[in-house]
Amino acid sequence: MAEADPIRRLIHAFSRLPGIGEKSAARLAFFVLDAEPHVASELAAALTEVRARIRKCSLCQNLTEQDPCRFCADGRRDAGLICVVENVQGLLAIERTGEFRGRYHVLHGRLSPLDGVGPDQIHIRELLGRLAGVTEIIVATSPSVEGEATALYIQRLAGPLGVRVTRIASGVPIGSELEYADQVTLSRALAGRRDL
Amino acid sequence: MAEADPIRRLIHAFSRLPGIGEKSAARLAFFVLDAEPHVASELAAALTEVRARIRKCSLCQNLTEQDPCRFCADGRRDAGLICVVENVQGLLAIERTGEFRGRYHVLHGRLSPLDGVGPDQIHIRELLGRLAGVTEIIVATSPSVEGEATALYIQRLAGPLGVRVTRIASGVPIGSELEYADQVTLSRALAGRRDL
Repeated sequence: MAEADPIRRLIHAFSRLPGIGEKSAARLAFFVLDAEPHVASELAAALTEVRARIRKCSLCQNLTEQDPCRFCADGRRDAGLICVVENVQGLLAIERTGEFRGRYHVLHGRLSPLDGVGPDQIHIRELLGRLAGVTEIIVATSPSVEGEATALYIQRLAGPLGVRVTRIASGVPIGSELEYADQVTLSRALAGRRDL
Repeated sequence: MAEADPIRRLIHAFSRLPGIGEKSAARLAFFVLDAEPHVASELAAALTEVRARIRKCSLCQNLTEQDPCRFCADGRRDAGLICVVENVQGLLAIERTGEFRGRYHVLHGRLSPLDGVGPDQIHIRELLGRLAGVTEIIVATSPSVEGEATALYIQRLAGPLGVRVTRIASGVPIGSELEYADQVTLSRALAGRRDL
């Protein structure tokens, strides 16, 4: 990397981001070096600011500037209904449907014993701690092995407490062609069939 | 993006990097938020440091901490031979061959009139200003329309000054299969054939 140690450090820092290998990291670093100075300074400032000002909501673990977050602070949202998501992206995806008016709980992960992620590594304890008055938990973790395992785990703990635990439906995506659906998805779609 | 303005700013800052769209930028931002704090702080520090300490070599325009850069300062390298590259990545690629012992000149771009990149936007003037004692310029710009145009432009300016201007060969990459080479590359390989 020539004599430029700072460049090497920047490449290394970029390469720690997900989906960015050594080559992409080098491309990003040299882009930043050739770009207007504000590109680097604004990214640096945003990184610093986000770490300083964003924390987890003490109730739902959503990332927020104010605690409690705006979903937990919104009295018009149904506190008896909690949608459990793996991450903030999941929360935002549910929110974009405009169909959900309950509260959220962000796990920041999903059970994955092989990766060393057990119940203590995701915010399951905090979920159990806020079940007073809750009638239903909708588990909207991803439709993967780990997402399913996480859903079942929550069901096993919360079910006996008298809380209804439901799971979002899996099946063929709207607008897609049946022939492109994979076997597992189609099996799920069949098993989850409903009367018309 | 929930109430989190700092998150939105971080996503925006990431999305200005090349090859990173809105979705990838969001993924990077949330990764940074969930990662250990040092991931964000080290990237921020590296960005700030690189802008503060790295500048262009006053001779060859290579990115460097010291001026002149280590290639220009190395008396063992042939100052009569200049390899012209589009960017530092190109310089590093040539350097990795271990075959080149001359000096470099980094254009930081290539002629592309449609994108508003003329001779004044890349460091052609600086190249012409250092031709005293130079016997050969090897133009190692990319084998694209713009790279070729840049090579021809340099030839037209430097040739009349008595400097030999050469171009790196284009052709079928070593180790590849002929059937996968595109037509243009194969045509070049044919036109550039040499006696064995």
